[in-house]
Amino acid sequence: MWVLNAEVLSVSIYSATMVSGRLLLSMALLILCGCQGTHSGNVLVFPGEYSHWLNMRVILEELVERNHSVTVLVCSASPTVNYTKPEDFSFKVYNVPFERHDWESLQEDFLNFWIYEAQNASMLQVGLKIREVLGSMTALQLSMCDAMFHNKELMDTLRQWEFDAVLSDPMMPCSDLMADALDVPLIVSLRFSFGMAMERHCGQIPAPPSFVPAPPLTYTDQMSFFERVHNFVTYMIHSSFFSIHCLQNMDKYYSGIKGRPTTLCEIMGKADIWLIRTYWDFEYPRPFLPNFKFVGGLHCKPAKPLSKAMEEFVQSSGDDGIVVFSLGSMIKNLTKERGNTIATALGQIPQKVLWRYSGEKPETLAPNTRVYEWIPQNDLLGHPKTKAFVTHGGTNGLYESIYHGVPMVGIPLFADQPDNIMHMKNKGAAVMVDFNKMTSKDIVDGLNSVINDPSYKASMMRLSRIHHDQPMKPLDTAVFWIEFVMRNKGAKHLRVEAHNLSWYQYHCLDVAAALLTIVALVIVVSIKTCIFCFLKCCKKTKSRQKTE
Amino acid sequence: MWVLNAEVLSVSIYSATMVSGRLLLSMALLILCGCQGTHSGNVLVFPGEYSHWLNMRVILEELVERNHSVTVLVCSASPTVNYTKPEDFSFKVYNVPFERHDWESLQEDFLNFWIYEAQNASMLQVGLKIREVLGSMTALQLSMCDAMFHNKELMDTLRQWEFDAVLSDPMMPCSDLMADALDVPLIVSLRFSFGMAMERHCGQIPAPPSFVPAPPLTYTDQMSFFERVHNFVTYMIHSSFFSIHCLQNMDKYYSGIKGRPTTLCEIMGKADIWLIRTYWDFEYPRPFLPNFKFVGGLHCKPAKPLSKAMEEFVQSSGDDGIVVFSLGSMIKNLTKERGNTIATALGQIPQKVLWRYSGEKPETLAPNTRVYEWIPQNDLLGHPKTKAFVTHGGTNGLYESIYHGVPMVGIPLFADQPDNIMHMKNKGAAVMVDFNKMTSKDIVDGLNSVINDPSYKASMMRLSRIHHDQPMKPLDTAVFWIEFVMRNKGAKHLRVEAHNLSWYQYHCLDVAAALLTIVALVIVVSIKTCIFCFLKCCKKTKSRQKTE
Repeated sequence: MWVLNAEVLSVSIYSATMVSGRLLLSMALLILCGCQGTHSGNVLVFPGEYSHWLNMRVILEELVERNHSVTVLVCSASPTVNYTKPEDFSFKVYNVPFERHDWESLQEDFLNFWIYEAQNASMLQVGLKIREVLGSMTALQLSMCDAMFHNKELMDTLRQWEFDAVLSDPMMPCSDLMADALDVPLIVSLRFSFGMAMERHCGQIPAPPSFVPAPPLTYTDQMSFFERVHNFVTYMIHSSFFSIHCLQNMDKYYSGIKGRPTTLCEIMGKADIWLIRTYWDFEYPRPFLPNFKFVGGLHCKPAKPLSKAMEEFVQSSGDDGIVVFSLGSMIKNLTKERGNTIATALGQIPQKVLWRYSGEKPETLAPNTRVYEWIPQNDLLGHPKTKAFVTHGGTNGLYESIYHGVPMVGIPLFADQPDNIMHMKNKGAAVMVDFNKMTSKDIVDGLNSVINDPSYKASMMRLSRIHHDQPMKPLDTAVFWIEFVMRNKGAKHLRVEAHNLSWYQYHCLDVAAALLTIVALVIVVSIKTCIFCFLKCCKKTKSRQKTE
Repeated sequence: MWVLNAEVLSVSIYSATMVSGRLLLSMALLILCGCQGTHSGNVLVFPGEYSHWLNMRVILEELVERNHSVTVLVCSASPTVNYTKPEDFSFKVYNVPFERHDWESLQEDFLNFWIYEAQNASMLQVGLKIREVLGSMTALQLSMCDAMFHNKELMDTLRQWEFDAVLSDPMMPCSDLMADALDVPLIVSLRFSFGMAMERHCGQIPAPPSFVPAPPLTYTDQMSFFERVHNFVTYMIHSSFFSIHCLQNMDKYYSGIKGRPTTLCEIMGKADIWLIRTYWDFEYPRPFLPNFKFVGGLHCKPAKPLSKAMEEFVQSSGDDGIVVFSLGSMIKNLTKERGNTIATALGQIPQKVLWRYSGEKPETLAPNTRVYEWIPQNDLLGHPKTKAFVTHGGTNGLYESIYHGVPMVGIPLFADQPDNIMHMKNKGAAVMVDFNKMTSKDIVDGLNSVINDPSYKASMMRLSRIHHDQPMKPLDTAVFWIEFVMRNKGAKHLRVEAHNLSWYQYHCLDVAAALLTIVALVIVVSIKTCIFCFLKCCKKTKSRQKTE
């Protein structure tokens, strides 16, 4: 259905040109484009949760807009994907033996520990907590995998629906295994894995530790000797951790489902396209592979008008403008003390503040600050009165800030947020504040800096120019490659042969060993020969001397 | 002039949306696009010679079409660039102390040696000839550099013309040094350097020898152990050769002009964009960098109608179709024997043959074959009657063949041609024939295979689909990045930090040495401590035994 018959195209273009030149040629091309447009693909989607889902649904809406059929495979306990709400794409729900609440409380438990307790905990306590949470998460993920692969009816249905591609966020477990089971090409969408272990080990992207900092380290591409040592060791630790985790959990599970020994990396490594949710406005330049496509900010759009009440509040800020404040959708409540610290700070600036916060109203809230359960963040960031964005540093908000050129005060909390904010700080477009240690003065100082020091705005505008000045919009790039995979049943011509090499072959260690052996042999043989000749000479001279 | 004011854009988009939605938004965007279109840049071009020039002039024509001012800096002895013919771009000619004939005869001399004599010559003879030719070429190149940099009037003029970018084929010497002298961003356009030494050493592109074959080796990305050893050694030899050549000639010259110690790689490494004249239809997938843009086949266009006489000849072929034959513009004459071998072969196939050849007409020329001084190669390859392309394997012809999906019989002669044809052969789209050893039967067999075995056509159509199915046309990509560099005064955000690392830092050898030292120290201290404790224990036991 998706195959473009280039021979027919070539003949028709030729005939068209032969008869009456440009007009007919254009018509032939139009017909061709038209045909491509009306042909539709069938995509199975494994959505991420939380902000990941918000990003992915933008792609899905665009796919639907382009006449593709989109089915989102979602578990009954999904904390974010509201499968009861009608959408332009359809949902296929499978039951899991746990509730939405189990997932959410696991997440919240870890979040609270990380934000409030980890700072004062010992390394051992943090390590044990991470181990505990990861254990629970893995158990939860494997039970989701079981709920799919041991559900015959679900598997039969998915097979019958004959998908053209699987689009997945690797946050969803076993999505690559499902693509493999359905024999359908796979496209993954991710921001990064810790230490880029997944991209490096399963995607084969090169990451020289000398100038590619390992997230979550907050170094730039310019590292001192000791930073490079730290970076190198971090890569090693993450690689070991990832390998052990795979070996103990995922590889065994994947082998069980496949019925032969395999690994997560072997299955995920079959992915045709890796959609990375950043771009060179954010990333430090680094080597990458032809099947890695950087589509950061694909969800960003020009601002839409605000509601009347909100617009009035914004306009009331006069020349001082407004500050947009959000710590994301996952932080629903702050401690009273942190809430008041923030509210006090916001009361000290001349700007009006729109604060997205669903927790208890802080007592120190000043009249210039309005608290909202939800704000139209992109529309506010695109408003000409917006002077700064106070953010936890989620990738979606960060890209909206880049898109609209608004400098940031970052209060990172967990996951990719410290890495995100440090990128912006290093590029001169943000000030970073420590959530636990910050005083009201720190927030005020941060805001005054990014609003009054023009270098922050200039740096953000430079990033914004890089973001807008691409050959193709990020969303179009993402959809182009999904459609490409559907049209061509994969994109194997972009997949490096490195996938089929062992680590020592990849790094030519076997070759180096062979060459060193040859060199050593040559040296030994040469020395032995020299000694032999020398001794023979000596013997002859001695015997001559004796004879004399 | 080229700076896009994103703040203004953001405000105007916002205001537009506020007032009357989509219509005004579209108008704002149209105005913006219009503004970008009318702003023009000023490009200084160092053209390549022979087929390189044919490729580059397509870019120049497109730049002119987009309202840019283009100046081609050409030496008075250029063998290919006809600066006396009026063009849409302008020429700036500088005098060199040699004639066009000197250049051409140097080239022809080497070509004849390579094609006819190298096969029967010893390794030593070939090595000496290469050294001789390279010596003459370097002398010629340095005299061209002298003719530019010691020509005060030329330098003053170029400075006054305030260029926005330099576009250069590295075949032209000192073009990077000129960009540096004029303080203008640089874009280089190349197919490859031998062993990719220039791209690796000056461009910092990674090339793991385990799966990236070093041109001119004709391996694929799937290499056996011995092929990997060969590949590894080839990289080392080319690296050494390149380093010695730079050290002895170019680095010294560049340092002289700069007035401080520098190297060719330091200056060329400042290039903002590397336009590589291939794409993943041709290349084996490999790691690359954000400032490497693959624009192979940018010169390809849909076929135009043939002349009446040629069309009649083509149509007279009936269902058998035609074969297009060309060994490129550099081969003007063949030996009588080689000419007759080819003519005899062409007489034995049922197809009609159009042969581009300006040498003496072979005696065995059959009625089905017509010889032309020049052929409209692209239009012929795009003709629906074309069944096969017999070619020396120049990159331009190869891409026209991919563009139109015509399988090839390759008779490579020199330079990148063996590498080109081997890529096509390995991808199942071509048969390769040895120019010196081929008999008429070999040519006939080759042609019969690619015409009658449908796998060749199918493979070429697969490559053609990959070629056509890109997010952006190669020419548009090339021009986009040239314009980007002009708009943004460079593209430094795409340039890796590896440029500022030494080779041992890049490969983390200093880090590894430090870590190994620490590990060794820990082991030594541990062993020493153990021994110390053990001895102390022994002593105590002995003294206790003694006391007892």
